[in-house]
Amino acid sequence: MTLKEKIAQLYGVWVGASDEGAEVAPHQHDMEEPVDLDDLLSDGLGQLTRPFGTVPVDPALGALSLMRTQARITAANRFGIPAVAHEECLAGFAAWGATAYPVPLSWGATFDPALVREMAAAIGRDMRAVGVHQGLAPVLDVVRDARWGRVEETIGEDPYLVGTIATAYVQGLESAGIVATLKHFAGYSASRAGRNLAPVGMGTRELADVILPPFEMAIRESGVRSVMHSYTDIDGIPSAADDRLLTGLLRDTWGFSGTVVADYFGIAFLKTLHGVAGTFGEAARAALAAGVDVELPTVNTFGAPLLDAVRQGHVSEELVDRAVRRVLLQKARLGLLDPDWSPVPPALRGVDTTAGPDALRGTVDLDPAANRTLARRIAEQSVVLVRNDGTLPLDPRTPCRIALIGPNSEAPTAVLGCYSFPVHVGGQHPDTPLGIDLPTLHEALVAEFSSAEVLVARGTGIDDAGSEGFAEALELARRADVVVAALGDRAGLFGRGTSGEGCDAGSLVLPGAQQELLDALLDTGTPVVTTLLAGRPYALGRAADESAAVLQSFFPGEAGTAAIASVLSGRTGPSGRLPVSVPRHPGAQPSTYLASRLGHTSEVSSIDPTPAFGFGHGLTYTTFHWSDLDVEDTEVPTDGEVRLALTVANTGERAGTELVQLYLHDPVASVVQPLRRLIGYVRLDLAPGERKRVRSVVPADLASFTGRTGTRTVEPGELELRLSASSTEPRLTARVTLVGPVRQLDHHRRLHADFEIQPCAVP
Amino acid sequence: MTLKEKIAQLYGVWVGASDEGAEVAPHQHDMEEPVDLDDLLSDGLGQLTRPFGTVPVDPALGALSLMRTQARITAANRFGIPAVAHEECLAGFAAWGATAYPVPLSWGATFDPALVREMAAAIGRDMRAVGVHQGLAPVLDVVRDARWGRVEETIGEDPYLVGTIATAYVQGLESAGIVATLKHFAGYSASRAGRNLAPVGMGTRELADVILPPFEMAIRESGVRSVMHSYTDIDGIPSAADDRLLTGLLRDTWGFSGTVVADYFGIAFLKTLHGVAGTFGEAARAALAAGVDVELPTVNTFGAPLLDAVRQGHVSEELVDRAVRRVLLQKARLGLLDPDWSPVPPALRGVDTTAGPDALRGTVDLDPAANRTLARRIAEQSVVLVRNDGTLPLDPRTPCRIALIGPNSEAPTAVLGCYSFPVHVGGQHPDTPLGIDLPTLHEALVAEFSSAEVLVARGTGIDDAGSEGFAEALELARRADVVVAALGDRAGLFGRGTSGEGCDAGSLVLPGAQQELLDALLDTGTPVVTTLLAGRPYALGRAADESAAVLQSFFPGEAGTAAIASVLSGRTGPSGRLPVSVPRHPGAQPSTYLASRLGHTSEVSSIDPTPAFGFGHGLTYTTFHWSDLDVEDTEVPTDGEVRLALTVANTGERAGTELVQLYLHDPVASVVQPLRRLIGYVRLDLAPGERKRVRSVVPADLASFTGRTGTRTVEPGELELRLSASSTEPRLTARVTLVGPVRQLDHHRRLHADFEIQPCAVP
Repeated sequence: MTLKEKIAQLYGVWVGASDEGAEVAPHQHDMEEPVDLDDLLSDGLGQLTRPFGTVPVDPALGALSLMRTQARITAANRFGIPAVAHEECLAGFAAWGATAYPVPLSWGATFDPALVREMAAAIGRDMRAVGVHQGLAPVLDVVRDARWGRVEETIGEDPYLVGTIATAYVQGLESAGIVATLKHFAGYSASRAGRNLAPVGMGTRELADVILPPFEMAIRESGVRSVMHSYTDIDGIPSAADDRLLTGLLRDTWGFSGTVVADYFGIAFLKTLHGVAGTFGEAARAALAAGVDVELPTVNTFGAPLLDAVRQGHVSEELVDRAVRRVLLQKARLGLLDPDWSPVPPALRGVDTTAGPDALRGTVDLDPAANRTLARRIAEQSVVLVRNDGTLPLDPRTPCRIALIGPNSEAPTAVLGCYSFPVHVGGQHPDTPLGIDLPTLHEALVAEFSSAEVLVARGTGIDDAGSEGFAEALELARRADVVVAALGDRAGLFGRGTSGEGCDAGSLVLPGAQQELLDALLDTGTPVVTTLLAGRPYALGRAADESAAVLQSFFPGEAGTAAIASVLSGRTGPSGRLPVSVPRHPGAQPSTYLASRLGHTSEVSSIDPTPAFGFGHGLTYTTFHWSDLDVEDTEVPTDGEVRLALTVANTGERAGTELVQLYLHDPVASVVQPLRRLIGYVRLDLAPGERKRVRSVVPADLASFTGRTGTRTVEPGELELRLSASSTEPRLTARVTLVGPVRQLDHHRRLHADFEIQPCAVP
Repeated sequence: MTLKEKIAQLYGVWVGASDEGAEVAPHQHDMEEPVDLDDLLSDGLGQLTRPFGTVPVDPALGALSLMRTQARITAANRFGIPAVAHEECLAGFAAWGATAYPVPLSWGATFDPALVREMAAAIGRDMRAVGVHQGLAPVLDVVRDARWGRVEETIGEDPYLVGTIATAYVQGLESAGIVATLKHFAGYSASRAGRNLAPVGMGTRELADVILPPFEMAIRESGVRSVMHSYTDIDGIPSAADDRLLTGLLRDTWGFSGTVVADYFGIAFLKTLHGVAGTFGEAARAALAAGVDVELPTVNTFGAPLLDAVRQGHVSEELVDRAVRRVLLQKARLGLLDPDWSPVPPALRGVDTTAGPDALRGTVDLDPAANRTLARRIAEQSVVLVRNDGTLPLDPRTPCRIALIGPNSEAPTAVLGCYSFPVHVGGQHPDTPLGIDLPTLHEALVAEFSSAEVLVARGTGIDDAGSEGFAEALELARRADVVVAALGDRAGLFGRGTSGEGCDAGSLVLPGAQQELLDALLDTGTPVVTTLLAGRPYALGRAADESAAVLQSFFPGEAGTAAIASVLSGRTGPSGRLPVSVPRHPGAQPSTYLASRLGHTSEVSSIDPTPAFGFGHGLTYTTFHWSDLDVEDTEVPTDGEVRLALTVANTGERAGTELVQLYLHDPVASVVQPLRRLIGYVRLDLAPGERKRVRSVVPADLASFTGRTGTRTVEPGELELRLSASSTEPRLTARVTLVGPVRQLDHHRRLHADFEIQPCAVP
């Protein structure tokens, strides 16, 4: 290959598929110069960026459009190499008409990796069907500041939870043949003051012990084939130009052999935002040398600037060769270099693609009933009942009057995050139908509570300051038996929403006048079920204590309102647990549960960081009794394992799900430790009266942390293994002592506690 | 010396002097066990903690009490070694009746090291007079989050400003023979979320380039003899147990040879708060090994626990020897080991100390007229006029009606910070007179504006939510020609104030209902001069744009209200400049001006961090013209220096002070740089029509930063030297190119630009 041909494999161009099935058109993004496809294609092309995720297009015609474009690409370059087509799939395939699953924060709330794996496999199958090869998900950023707009895209504030759920997602997506992309590597979630892209101030230990473990787990356990760098810099080093991170750690230490792709425009940002490159050529050199293989979404620096830099001797061609080898290897493994490769995607095989657009339109369903059922199951498992004075469940057979109040009562897209197609793209195409069925909470309540009268009022907007609608809303509230206050966020991009990319919060007060509305509803005396459809946790003020119930959901997807209604009625038992703390103080950020004693205490500060509801918290409609803790040995070598067992019984009258959470408390260590951190969890579904015995094997490796010298260390000493219903609700504590020498671990350490569940005889 | 005798030199006991001149009494602090002096003293004693700063005591009788105690201490140990008596002196000697100078943030606002040196010398003389040896100041923490309660104790948000002012303070204090103490070493100001003592997440580069430079400058240039560790941990390593910091950097690299003292209870906190020690003995070992020599304020870990640990072989006696050698060397240099040492302090020499308390009472004046004049000069130079639509100055000869509104109108202590005696100690002794004259702003306005009618109303409290007083206040405002809104903070400790140690803010909205009051005052249509007596900057909402004028003062001390009145009337021209940004958004913290482009931009986040008034900003009552920039060479070697000159002319009709600020902008560097950072400044006093030529020599060393490999580096490339009226108001820019090789610097690098000022002939 010529240098130019090699370089052509290292970038994408941003295109939109044609709704008539014609070839894709270059996307005229406002941040870039338009590209001339004819000019480019003779050298080949590495990637096609978002053919489905750019403009609304019928899936079958989009597939046809992509197919024709691939045919053109392969015909245009002398090796016949097609492009990798990539798409966003943060919470489902970001294509018109595709299933909108709950956002990742909801996956976190399920604490159910198997279910997330199933979802990701379904997402992957749909992407694969229409000719997509790579998905830019999952997000493995661990929440560090709840003000950050992209909290909704994360799985939560605990690295073990993020790691296990994200790994399951990758396994699912890759099982369908789609290249998954771990992002954002690394540190993005710690953007200063929760401001999108702001610099990250973080030490190497926090990086190693909080930010990196999910990536390490996914790389070791999922077979993931791509990684995307983070936009930010950590302590002055932009991730896109950090060879210690992208090469030293990722490849040399962890053994990753896939591709590293740029976050959109991230290489150009080395010049324009970070100031570590004076020209686009220098930016290209810095990124390529650090280990970025592919520029996305389009070619800014890896085209002419890189070509010139290589020709002028500023960049070694070996760096280009290194990247192109990875790209072509990936294309080979995808089958794209096979002699019998065909641009016809699975969905169009056997279809007469010459029949014209009208014959094809509507023939590919990206939201079939099976998807919808799956989306609903996840939504149901993700709703978190954080408070209940007994008002819930509301018996659907009992006639009553429900006042549904709030800006999310009748908003179809209130269930969607920023990266769903209807929000991410649909917003710019207001005349195009949403493409999927999105029942409002009002519609869902009417369907669920057929014996009830459902009154509805908006009260206020999501982020208006206006209180003009209060009077009507309060009047309805006073007339009702119960108020369902439907509050929260509106997802959007760059300031168009209250949650999502670039929609950061200054404090954790509910946006607009929602807290005032909520307070006024509480003042009516009618029991208020505070129901949040949101992208981040909010401090709820007095409502945290005075609501009859609080139901927290994080943009629960297309079946989300039905799931909420079903939990309200008790048809579905609530089983979600908080993947992020719900703060009490709106201004104590950054703060997560993963803090040392000084991060939790209010002894020495007027600002109390104690959450209203802690990480891992969630109620059910039944009661559980935890008992009979057995610990096999209370002295265990630093390279040994703790074996323990306990019994959990459903002592209530309804079926329910208990989440056994295992937290480590290390009272004395050579470096400051979090007061507690999650090292394992297991879901238990229990019928009324049912008891199960949970056995666990906990390797001492899980007590490791980055020691003073920078290596991962297990120290002898006392530990508490707290078997807990949440981070703040320990139920049974196993006190063990690690004995023997201090151990230095490498990255082959064990990452999991094993759990085994056995039925118990009824006593 | 026996082991026990050696260890006795390594701790203090907390005592209060007797107001009857008897010996000091142990302080029954609620955080500790009482100590038995008789029991302790036979082994000797390292330190006496705060004999004057614990209870109100007449200075002469306090000196007598201390003298008698020293006599007892020297008599009780077989070597006759007295204790070092230490006191707080953050903003003046923290003793009853001593001058309360403006707080350090006001020193920063003066940008006048010489004046601060003069103040510190006066503070030192007063301390020395009554028998004190060591002062626990200055604070060199660089503001990183304005929510932190201790912002008032800092000098500002720029390391160069902090370094130069703090160094001057140390020089002044040490010139009086007092041991100055640099604190808090290091990182305390970055406590997470601005919460006192919360863990610090920070990389080594930010530490090296922002936090440490003031300490390095003070150690190299001031002869400082003591350093206090910080309470917090940085990335998991508590400062008190960090040998890299307290020994590797401080002593081995920087060559510091004095004592390292504990922040109060900080060694015990290694066990109780940080969890890096299992026992007090382990805590003592960790601190001693890291390089802490003296436990303060009292003996928790360096007594029996350390003794046992040494005896049991857990701690090498050599570590004890190392510390005791430093302590005794310091005592020797203080003259405490001289054969002719006498416990009689200067103030009691030649005084008949047997005459009884009543004869002595009142004979030592710690707030003489000269101090008061000095306090006033600093206060006058520290008031910052941040906005003025021409309403100021208010001509004092013109009859008018001034409505003085707000909670700080009639509060005598509104001018004082948390570490002033009346606030720090006096608050617990409400029946004791304040000890110094503290005219209220009301009194000061009446005195300054003799032709005016001054109406006064509180309106609301500092931190009440109440608006009951609004009506009266607004009525006065409507009747007045001008409103002076006296708002801000009440200093206090641990939640008793809105600023001060442990009084952290959740957001930068003015406390209580003050913003609502201010908005209502603006609505009256009467011009509002927003006048802040505060410990931190606050976002002022619409008042930042709609006030007729904004006068920012940071607890300006006992002469502060007179200084403010004098600036309002124009008798004193305002000359202060902001040592911290005044934010526009109340929730974008942490944020300071010292941020890279991504920390300044609002392109990609809904939260705009742009300040309302930038670091270094401050108006005057005259106008200046900057011109005739000469740059000797625009290409300078990386080990060279830039020579430049410019002319500043007072083009207005009043005398005024211009502050020439020199900022470095490094457009491309190998690691992300702040958009601009202060590397030099000089004050120019100019009569109307006067012009001065400012010549500066700027060593390339000032462009150095911590490079990728962790060493301080000067890189070739383009630089802008921005001669500016504030961080956001460049006036003239010198563009220069550094040429030659990349240079690695050691700690002998040059730290300053030189300035030379010459009069110019009138044109």
